[in-house]
Amino acid sequence: MSFLASLRKGRRPLQTLLGSAAEDGLDSDAQEARRAYYDRLENLPLPKGFYLGVAKDIIFFPQELPLESSKPYKLNMALLTTEKPSENFAAVFTKNRFCGHPVTLGRQRLAESTKMGGLLVNNRISNAANKHGMDKAETLCVDVANGLGPDWSAENIAVSSTGIIGWELPMKEMASAIPQLIESRFQVEKEKDIGSHSVADFARAIMTTDAYPKAFGITLKNGAKVVGVAKGAGMIEPNMATMLVFILTDMAVPRATLQKTLDKVVAETFNCISIDADESTSDTVWLLSSNRVPLGGGDGDSDPDAQLLEFQEALFEVSRQLSKEIVRNGEGVKHVIECNVSRAPSFAIAKALAKSVINSPLLKSAIAGNDPNIGRLACALGSALGRVGEGLTDEQLRKTKIFMDRDSVYSNGAFNLTPELERKLTEYMRSAELFIGGKKPDFPSHDRSVRIDVDMDLGQSSCRVYGADLTVEYVIENSQYRS
Amino acid sequence: MSFLASLRKGRRPLQTLLGSAAEDGLDSDAQEARRAYYDRLENLPLPKGFYLGVAKDIIFFPQELPLESSKPYKLNMALLTTEKPSENFAAVFTKNRFCGHPVTLGRQRLAESTKMGGLLVNNRISNAANKHGMDKAETLCVDVANGLGPDWSAENIAVSSTGIIGWELPMKEMASAIPQLIESRFQVEKEKDIGSHSVADFARAIMTTDAYPKAFGITLKNGAKVVGVAKGAGMIEPNMATMLVFILTDMAVPRATLQKTLDKVVAETFNCISIDADESTSDTVWLLSSNRVPLGGGDGDSDPDAQLLEFQEALFEVSRQLSKEIVRNGEGVKHVIECNVSRAPSFAIAKALAKSVINSPLLKSAIAGNDPNIGRLACALGSALGRVGEGLTDEQLRKTKIFMDRDSVYSNGAFNLTPELERKLTEYMRSAELFIGGKKPDFPSHDRSVRIDVDMDLGQSSCRVYGADLTVEYVIENSQYRS
Repeated sequence: MSFLASLRKGRRPLQTLLGSAAEDGLDSDAQEARRAYYDRLENLPLPKGFYLGVAKDIIFFPQELPLESSKPYKLNMALLTTEKPSENFAAVFTKNRFCGHPVTLGRQRLAESTKMGGLLVNNRISNAANKHGMDKAETLCVDVANGLGPDWSAENIAVSSTGIIGWELPMKEMASAIPQLIESRFQVEKEKDIGSHSVADFARAIMTTDAYPKAFGITLKNGAKVVGVAKGAGMIEPNMATMLVFILTDMAVPRATLQKTLDKVVAETFNCISIDADESTSDTVWLLSSNRVPLGGGDGDSDPDAQLLEFQEALFEVSRQLSKEIVRNGEGVKHVIECNVSRAPSFAIAKALAKSVINSPLLKSAIAGNDPNIGRLACALGSALGRVGEGLTDEQLRKTKIFMDRDSVYSNGAFNLTPELERKLTEYMRSAELFIGGKKPDFPSHDRSVRIDVDMDLGQSSCRVYGADLTVEYVIENSQYRS
Repeated sequence: MSFLASLRKGRRPLQTLLGSAAEDGLDSDAQEARRAYYDRLENLPLPKGFYLGVAKDIIFFPQELPLESSKPYKLNMALLTTEKPSENFAAVFTKNRFCGHPVTLGRQRLAESTKMGGLLVNNRISNAANKHGMDKAETLCVDVANGLGPDWSAENIAVSSTGIIGWELPMKEMASAIPQLIESRFQVEKEKDIGSHSVADFARAIMTTDAYPKAFGITLKNGAKVVGVAKGAGMIEPNMATMLVFILTDMAVPRATLQKTLDKVVAETFNCISIDADESTSDTVWLLSSNRVPLGGGDGDSDPDAQLLEFQEALFEVSRQLSKEIVRNGEGVKHVIECNVSRAPSFAIAKALAKSVINSPLLKSAIAGNDPNIGRLACALGSALGRVGEGLTDEQLRKTKIFMDRDSVYSNGAFNLTPELERKLTEYMRSAELFIGGKKPDFPSHDRSVRIDVDMDLGQSSCRVYGADLTVEYVIENSQYRS
């Protein structure tokens, strides 16, 4: 079956989606939101000069299970490639020191490769803490490079794996699927309408327990695109790890600029979210350019500086949207929490305070129960200040003001809550719940979040962080014994 | 009613306890453990030279609630005093920068007072983030000093409050109860048998939602005692904050030695526990000596250095036992987790790793479900190493070995789990559950914990940390809207 045919086959018709929506008991507004989400996703094309191959439902028998009791497992593979290896790429990896083998190999590519052009991803098995994991990651790169032809070598390819930790990748089955991934590339070159094909299948193929595929794109004035795809929601699922993000652009931004921009953007977006404060062993963000739109070229304004600025803003916005989706998609998450710390003496202090708020199990539990428990909020802030607030006097800290839903709840070192305000804030939290009819829908139901603002009145720095509440569903999901 | 009579009245007869035990469906082993626990508690006397007053169920109407809907609330007060103000005392307070007023006042005492002799504690309302909280804390100290007589001044008294954050203390009602607390002191002086009265009533009076009273004592060879009483389990209860610990001794240890020893002991005991990683606004440990047993005096060995060493060891052991009880008493806690990191390059690294393990929501959830999910364990360690492991090479980190229940589960950078070992570890976790018949008993049911050992093979430092699992009960308890 050709790549496009399989793409078309894999895509669920909108009618089916709406049918299942009705079964989910969604009201008409929710159905409309769902339709809009999937419409946008299906119509989000890859940037120019990128090719996509997907191989779904590859059957294997895990070698870790006894043969007699073994049932067939399935994994997906997906391959993104540029036309030819590109000198413009960047990446950021987890700081976890017990990282997965694909991360170790990715760091090697970043340090040693002059060109990059292929990103191979599999779900189901996270290639981490295996005895032969490094060999396997390298072998996959060799296989892909061989398939792509003489212009390619293994050092142009990177891999990402996500799923069960500790199991070995089924190499034989994966190797057999690689020709299909490669073939799709040549199929695509023959078809005229390739510019219009969607990233949706890639976003779906790399999912593990994600409730829905996540992608976001922006078209710049010069016609170039910045398109990002993400999976994962922190380490939120039994044995499933890994936030993986792939951002593609056809704008020819120099490698050094790409890396510098990505470092800054990741620090303020993906590193400013937290479901459960655990940094996965495999978190990865790749950024790759196909160089189709030269800097200073394309349509519209041809000022390279203006184009670069617009590109950087687009990269930030794509990353911000994807990081919000990752939180919104966290299993068991009922409320997204947005915490803005402003007028802080430094970014480090602003971030420490905001992260302390969204990582406080007590506050997270209270928000799950629609309880505006600002004693816990002040506690989380004071706890962070105990760690990072050295040199700040008590008098300075008395300037701190706290707001929920823009209502002042704490100032001059004391709470301002009244029974009326408590009732209002409870109602606010209730209206910010993500669940529909008691369960999580298979699309990002709306953009609501519980907003907390902390104004320190002590400087110019600020930080915005997205987190999630702590629900009974989260604990149940994460405490079930592995089957 | 005299103090001793009220003490006797307050004490529940053993028969009642056992009757209620039977109703709880405890088996005979559990009944025996319960009897032993309360026997030990009831027979644990104050050290010589200490006096105790308790006033229970003081009725008040919170000014924060509308008068028409107001129902009566109750609080307890308890007062510990030495015969006369003592120059030998020490304290350690929370590092939370939004701390309660009693902590601010306590720090003042530590900095400015030359003598300390009275510790006044109330439950029900935590005097924190109130507009007039500081005035109220100071007024209570003045009232107690006036009651105690001409040898006393407010600077000899400290206060601790625990309970709802943000409410004002009901000063009129509390002031009226102070004479009763003072009177008990003189009652006690008249009675011959005072040396035998128990700390149990103090331990009970300061409880908020603690499931049972917590106290532990050790008698040294020279006859001196070290007796500690604790309440709280981190910030684990809606609106209730505060771990409060009071350690009393009749050994005349110089103030500087007391403080130095307490700092060290707290760092390795109370600061090495965590229920939910939130540092309360009011955590406090007071240590006070009545000076009855001179250093180098008393029975037995009269070598001051040997006595001091024995005292320090006793202080450590009392603190270790109380910190374990605090974890064991955390609401919703099904498993206590003990994590030992050994042969680390520094204590800071050992502690960071151990705390990362016991604060990982994912690992805590897995343990709640009796799941030996060591992928999450390695993830928590790697995440901490990303923060504190700078300078350690990957080769060095490959020496790390991880054990559960003393079985090796990770070495040479890879997992060693087999289906057999997984089954064994699941069984181990099941047998370590604290609940009896599906619910938490009102005594520390047994000493079990889930033990995790991490051997870094990189140095001489080690750290032992106690934590708790993350259960559905915890989330429910902490997400219910305040009534």
